[in-house]
Amino acid sequence: MSTAEIGTPVEPRLVTLSEIRIAADRLRGVVVRTPLLEVPSPADVPARRMLVKPESLQVIGSFKIRGAYNAIAGIPAERRHAGVVAYSSGNHAQGVARAARLLEVRAIIVVPRTIPDVKLARIRADGAEVILHGSTSDERGERAATIARREGLTLIPPYDDLAIIAGQGTVGLEIADDLAETVHAGSPEPTILVPIGGGGLAAGVVTAIKAILPRATLFGVEPVDAADARDSLSRGTIVRWPATRTGRTIADGLRTTSIGRLPFEHLRDQLDGVLTVTDEGIIRAMARAFLDLRLVLEPSGAVALAAMLDSGQILEGRGPIVSILSGGNVDPVVFRRALVDSGTWLP
Amino acid sequence: MSTAEIGTPVEPRLVTLSEIRIAADRLRGVVVRTPLLEVPSPADVPARRMLVKPESLQVIGSFKIRGAYNAIAGIPAERRHAGVVAYSSGNHAQGVARAARLLEVRAIIVVPRTIPDVKLARIRADGAEVILHGSTSDERGERAATIARREGLTLIPPYDDLAIIAGQGTVGLEIADDLAETVHAGSPEPTILVPIGGGGLAAGVVTAIKAILPRATLFGVEPVDAADARDSLSRGTIVRWPATRTGRTIADGLRTTSIGRLPFEHLRDQLDGVLTVTDEGIIRAMARAFLDLRLVLEPSGAVALAAMLDSGQILEGRGPIVSILSGGNVDPVVFRRALVDSGTWLP
Repeated sequence: MSTAEIGTPVEPRLVTLSEIRIAADRLRGVVVRTPLLEVPSPADVPARRMLVKPESLQVIGSFKIRGAYNAIAGIPAERRHAGVVAYSSGNHAQGVARAARLLEVRAIIVVPRTIPDVKLARIRADGAEVILHGSTSDERGERAATIARREGLTLIPPYDDLAIIAGQGTVGLEIADDLAETVHAGSPEPTILVPIGGGGLAAGVVTAIKAILPRATLFGVEPVDAADARDSLSRGTIVRWPATRTGRTIADGLRTTSIGRLPFEHLRDQLDGVLTVTDEGIIRAMARAFLDLRLVLEPSGAVALAAMLDSGQILEGRGPIVSILSGGNVDPVVFRRALVDSGTWLP
Repeated sequence: MSTAEIGTPVEPRLVTLSEIRIAADRLRGVVVRTPLLEVPSPADVPARRMLVKPESLQVIGSFKIRGAYNAIAGIPAERRHAGVVAYSSGNHAQGVARAARLLEVRAIIVVPRTIPDVKLARIRADGAEVILHGSTSDERGERAATIARREGLTLIPPYDDLAIIAGQGTVGLEIADDLAETVHAGSPEPTILVPIGGGGLAAGVVTAIKAILPRATLFGVEPVDAADARDSLSRGTIVRWPATRTGRTIADGLRTTSIGRLPFEHLRDQLDGVLTVTDEGIIRAMARAFLDLRLVLEPSGAVALAAMLDSGQILEGRGPIVSILSGGNVDPVVFRRALVDSGTWLP
């Protein structure tokens, strides 16, 4: 019997760089090796190089395939055979459905009754079984846990899981590799901006980057209406924001009311700070991505770009800044409204 | 004195694979190594793998930087010092302006008086001198030639040039390299679809691909209103279409009335055929790229995707199909109209 089982609190284990490298090996040929793209700036304005990592171009249009595939691929064969279950209305659902299809594993996804048709169609197109259930995330989580227990399926959580964090960390590994070609010994170190919802992406990326480029600076980015991670990290304990507040932001993928326990443990000592962005800033960033980068971003996918474009503070440094654009699964109507509201289009 | 100078017709020389490799070396660290992205299709539909090469993500939003940079980098130092001149209202102008900035060379671009403000601003942002002149391409060509002669500048043509063709050929080199990881000995060979305007991109790509993957099939793609290359290749001589006809297509980058002499010589024995697409097909492809690939394409950049989605004939083969998406510099109003006309958005 281990000490954990007799009630002694254990320090949760953190993901290691070598686990992220194993995830990268698993993901080779499965995920897109997304490039770093330069955000154009006028020739006569001396500023830091601004780069983006467009995970909107990833398989399923979001980084979520990385963690989901790594988690499912890591289930021992005898258990993997039975299948997996997840609950999500967003990119994690599509990540699990696609990863299960690629690994030829049965998948059940519990989604809200209010899920948009286009998302439902995409999950079903990947062959997953869909259960429409409940109106809150907690209700769906309970249902998924019940299914997992009864049918012997493995629950694939969206962020509070070491295999998920290691998979998302491959985004950081690729950034570090690409920067190694431009960042030489003695040259200014980079700044990386990463969105925080549940914290899985940020946890993986900060682990990979700090292990390879220890002098790099990492900022999380949150909507002002869902700045729970900022509060959690400054208070040293996980803080929950009310869903009535986080539900206000246009960045629907970042409405999580609190970050996960494991992500928190990864971020508390490694993240350099958290920046917040407004809906107006997010909309301007979506328009800039459309015009100057030819990228279609969902609001959550644009928060790091918004912080890069609007934060005078971080622009005062010297090395390159890399913003992670986490996804591009935007409702066409929301996209159109963003381009109208930003002044790109007349109404 | 060479035989050419006393009037004997000489067979024009073709670009070699090694010249394309030299161009690739010059372009390393300058251009984006664009990835191959998979076009999603339902799990239960057995079909050829459909891939795209999104040069819309390239520096300046188009493949044109590749040829322009290779051409300017290849000018002997004593002549390069004086600078370069080009005439174009489109992506070639931006390619030359950016390449000249990167190589610290003076650039003069002759553009039509009717050039949109946003394009003008981008050319000037790269530090190029702009001359607004004339209403036809021929007038601007004469003006550019006069400037080149008088001031000792080197004229950078848009497609009828070996260095330009070699630079554009690096797109084919990257496709061949990426496919080598998935196409094994004995497996079905790929089909590549490449847009044809003046023919520089198609000439370079066909040369690279046929040298590395001799059993690959290559199709050019043209708008039905500018199918002059199809006619030229079937008749064995360069055919010119009236500008009143080519001016009708929404694909403004492919309104060229005839292909260049050198591109023609590269394509006549190597290209397997030419497919044509309608404006309606182009618009559907732009919408599909927006929804399923999260890419912003200009109409010319969408023609190969349109051919891939609509040509039942090519889908009957077995290997992967790769469509080259040549650019993403679309007028926001044209983009919005395309998404309305395709039924993606209500008016």
